[in-house]
Amino acid sequence: MSGKLQGNIVVTGSNRGIGLELVRQLAQQVKEEETHLYACCREPEGSQAQALRELAAQHPGKISIIRLDISDEESISAAVQAVSEHIGDEGLNLLINNAAINKPASPAPLSATEKKHMMDVYETNVVGPFLLAKMFLPLLQRAAERDSPENNKGDTMSCRRSAIINISTLISSIEKCPESFSVAQMYPYRTSKAALNMLTRCQAEDFRAHNILVTAVHPGWVQTEMGGDQAPLTTQDSVRGMLSVMVSFSNKDCGRLLDWQGGAIPW
Amino acid sequence: MSGKLQGNIVVTGSNRGIGLELVRQLAQQVKEEETHLYACCREPEGSQAQALRELAAQHPGKISIIRLDISDEESISAAVQAVSEHIGDEGLNLLINNAAINKPASPAPLSATEKKHMMDVYETNVVGPFLLAKMFLPLLQRAAERDSPENNKGDTMSCRRSAIINISTLISSIEKCPESFSVAQMYPYRTSKAALNMLTRCQAEDFRAHNILVTAVHPGWVQTEMGGDQAPLTTQDSVRGMLSVMVSFSNKDCGRLLDWQGGAIPW
Repeated sequence: MSGKLQGNIVVTGSNRGIGLELVRQLAQQVKEEETHLYACCREPEGSQAQALRELAAQHPGKISIIRLDISDEESISAAVQAVSEHIGDEGLNLLINNAAINKPASPAPLSATEKKHMMDVYETNVVGPFLLAKMFLPLLQRAAERDSPENNKGDTMSCRRSAIINISTLISSIEKCPESFSVAQMYPYRTSKAALNMLTRCQAEDFRAHNILVTAVHPGWVQTEMGGDQAPLTTQDSVRGMLSVMVSFSNKDCGRLLDWQGGAIPW
Repeated sequence: MSGKLQGNIVVTGSNRGIGLELVRQLAQQVKEEETHLYACCREPEGSQAQALRELAAQHPGKISIIRLDISDEESISAAVQAVSEHIGDEGLNLLINNAAINKPASPAPLSATEKKHMMDVYETNVVGPFLLAKMFLPLLQRAAERDSPENNKGDTMSCRRSAIINISTLISSIEKCPESFSVAQMYPYRTSKAALNMLTRCQAEDFRAHNILVTAVHPGWVQTEMGGDQAPLTTQDSVRGMLSVMVSFSNKDCGRLLDWQGGAIPW
């Protein structure tokens, strides 16, 4: 393991759950002069973002809260522009695509699932990360070009140099669908996350020549608003595991789906 | 192999390419009293449907041309209604979800791929089959209930009894993405077809209790408008292979991705 994450880091969906905890642990781990965190959420001034605002106040100069509605292309453009202006020549080291929605809100059968659910969930969970990667690509390339991969033992890719981490899920696995379908049907969510895995794999191929790592990570079944109370894993432990695994990622992990303990999940 | 397909069969995207050839070979193979084909396309009266109209005229009473724009939920409703009225109490034995689009029209890099491409392709290639399966479910159940699975050696599912075949593609395979990405990037198409595979696997689990088989089939790289001239396989050979494989499908094939020769493709 090569120390801690650092550099310029963007986290989407950062006002609650896993996204908020990612920003909290990153802010605790990293040194101010080495790292700046861009914590994106839909309504930076809203009541849903109060915990994030308090966190930013505890770490003055280390966290910028960025307005981002990932279902809105203009909002994505504006967020990328805001981050770009702040970053200047440095480049973006790490984009964590964490924002995601689930509709209908509870696991629902086919009969209760509508076209609008399918389209909305795809727009946020797949097209949002697609556009963010596309628009942040120049900044990710800049970070990759600036870095000299010392201490990397021949590896050219890492989350410290330049990377996209897409937060996926165990139930994105088409192979493992029969094990969980009956307890959580979730057609829109499952189809979107399988598509996100394909996006991860495509961008891993696409960006490999630029030394940008792209990997999908399953955070475990976590006690969040989406995961519910009966989930076995705390948000803290999930994020601690993911950050520890992410810092170890190298060329061999690019284009894969790995869980918060580094275990491989089949497509 | 248990003979030929038969019963009430719906084919979408049937005015050209693989869809047209499916209707042509089915019309040649089956007996009039045993089978009725519902050939769906966007504009039954348009110039793009002339070959389909001629085919229907060659087989009087065997082929009904049904108007269906799979990107339009009302059009899907109307098509399902029209088929239902014609079928009456018999039920639907086989739904072949063949209609699909690719945008941008040629394999395009990330920089030339827009949000609208991603959304449109998902709407047609995934949400269309999702809605068709949902709306045709009562008719598929009726067919499954009417059938007595004689000669099935313990198997309860087949394309003759009640089935959905989703036409997928080799490049839907997340596992195999690195082998083909550089020659055909196609972000919207690839993500949509990975999602279609997940839909196939979910509905296979969902409909198993009703004895409805759901399987994804890769037609091979075929000389169609989408496949291009340099493709190695004729539409005739592809469809001959797929129909031969489909008629052999039983319980063990439900929820899988198989090619036109019956070979398994990894997710």
